[in-house]
Amino acid sequence: MQILERFLKGEKPAIARVITKIENGTDPKLLEDIFPHTGNAYYIGITGPPGAGKSSLVNAIVPKLLENNKKVGIIAVDPTSPFSGGALLGDRIRMNDLALNENVFIRSMATRGSLGGLASKTKDVALVLDAAGMDYVIIETVGVGQVELDIAQVCDTTVVTLVPESGDAIQAMKAGILEVADILVVNKGDRTGSDRLMMELKFAFELRDEKIKWQVPILKTVAIENQGIEELVSTIKFHKEYLEKSGEIEIERKNKLVLRVNELIEEKIRTHLHNYIIDQKHLKKMIDKAYDRKITPHCIVDEIAKKIFKGGE
Amino acid sequence: MQILERFLKGEKPAIARVITKIENGTDPKLLEDIFPHTGNAYYIGITGPPGAGKSSLVNAIVPKLLENNKKVGIIAVDPTSPFSGGALLGDRIRMNDLALNENVFIRSMATRGSLGGLASKTKDVALVLDAAGMDYVIIETVGVGQVELDIAQVCDTTVVTLVPESGDAIQAMKAGILEVADILVVNKGDRTGSDRLMMELKFAFELRDEKIKWQVPILKTVAIENQGIEELVSTIKFHKEYLEKSGEIEIERKNKLVLRVNELIEEKIRTHLHNYIIDQKHLKKMIDKAYDRKITPHCIVDEIAKKIFKGGE
Repeated sequence: MQILERFLKGEKPAIARVITKIENGTDPKLLEDIFPHTGNAYYIGITGPPGAGKSSLVNAIVPKLLENNKKVGIIAVDPTSPFSGGALLGDRIRMNDLALNENVFIRSMATRGSLGGLASKTKDVALVLDAAGMDYVIIETVGVGQVELDIAQVCDTTVVTLVPESGDAIQAMKAGILEVADILVVNKGDRTGSDRLMMELKFAFELRDEKIKWQVPILKTVAIENQGIEELVSTIKFHKEYLEKSGEIEIERKNKLVLRVNELIEEKIRTHLHNYIIDQKHLKKMIDKAYDRKITPHCIVDEIAKKIFKGGE
Repeated sequence: MQILERFLKGEKPAIARVITKIENGTDPKLLEDIFPHTGNAYYIGITGPPGAGKSSLVNAIVPKLLENNKKVGIIAVDPTSPFSGGALLGDRIRMNDLALNENVFIRSMATRGSLGGLASKTKDVALVLDAAGMDYVIIETVGVGQVELDIAQVCDTTVVTLVPESGDAIQAMKAGILEVADILVVNKGDRTGSDRLMMELKFAFELRDEKIKWQVPILKTVAIENQGIEELVSTIKFHKEYLEKSGEIEIERKNKLVLRVNELIEEKIRTHLHNYIIDQKHLKKMIDKAYDRKITPHCIVDEIAKKIFKGGE
């Protein structure tokens, strides 16, 4: 238990070890021990397409979040394919200065196996940083896919970053990423096309359902020159205040817990299913029958469902 | 049953009605009636990022596939967000000429509700076109996300289309889309940067595992000018022959049936779970406890799992 004590004091080596244990799933009780200490951190998601300057943005906002002796945990998620493993290393290296700060803890997480698993593990690692006494937990994700949407589910404030070169905002919209944005940032705002992009985004958001209470602010930054960063940080804090004062933060966090429970049960079911199906010559026979068009996949599923569920159906 | 007869004769209005019924799920037995008539069509997936000219490519290859009195079914899948509903209409309109051909059947499918649901429905609609006597079923998807990967799971040959402007091939790689490619096409190959893109792609593929038997061909096309189309079609046919002669087609199709069964059972479980969890004040109580950090989401899940699964755990 000595490690847990040191962990709760916020000692970096202890934090790193706990994260590794959580990532590897070697100690299932560990999360239970940690969980009572969570709930104090504010979760900020930074996401957007590759090349949008998310790491620069994180580098720029963290010093402001650290003011008044606050602590910041950063999780950098790289849902890359096996093809492009090394491509993002440069971004990470630039974060080294921050890593030296005693009030900052940085962890990179990369895909091993399924993307779904990555998003799920990231959420548990965020809890670890929360329990370790971080005031802010920043989750930076590189991409515009399902992982990003899944991770947005645990963030109190999700900042979506675009650049003029990310070209058609339409493309980002298709990925559904704008729908999870609490704050939109047009980074590299000194480049050609940034004003046009801002106009397009404003137009797109004006078309949205009027029932939405929080009007998504669209900000312009030049992260590497620290422009617009002050305003971004105060907008994040304004959103935090808005959630807290309106009571929405409790509702939102409970909704997120429901989503998390659903996600975990789907994972459990997948494992259960996997264990059930593997070693089953029966399934192979059924697949052969389906291949010969004698039984539909839907009927196979009905049969399996009857076997694994209590109460049939 | 009259409609089924007319459907099996390949009458277009009957095909359209059967698809609608399958899409709406109003007649669960219908797929069972149709399924014995499937297994004859060859499934071709055409996918790639927005703006890669997929529709033009489909327009160009279909006339060649129609030679020797063959029939072609086309499913155009638009996994768009609510934001950009109308953006792709233009592409579809261009397909009108093909739609007039009596040996061509075209169906557009758009997102209603979940993306996962879309990919799943698309697979059933492909079976419908297969049963209706199509020799080729082309599934065209617009995007680089999970839907595309899911749909590639049912295609015998997946053609991934890129353009020089889709910029960094790296981005496409991240989305995992190159990993599902059986054939790669650099479309709009007359534009600046297409040779460089081809080089990058060749390099990326050379790095791949040597155990892979099928060496992914990388072709250049200018679809709207019909350039490179002949070669693309013969490469598709060459891949078909390769699968058939090596016997891989049976293995692949059986593997795909296993994936399909897994997907369907996950869907069923999700529904089951949903029905189980809804109306459960108990879950709300558990979430409140989790919010107060008295129980972890993981423990809630263990409890739920015990209730719904036969054989515990």
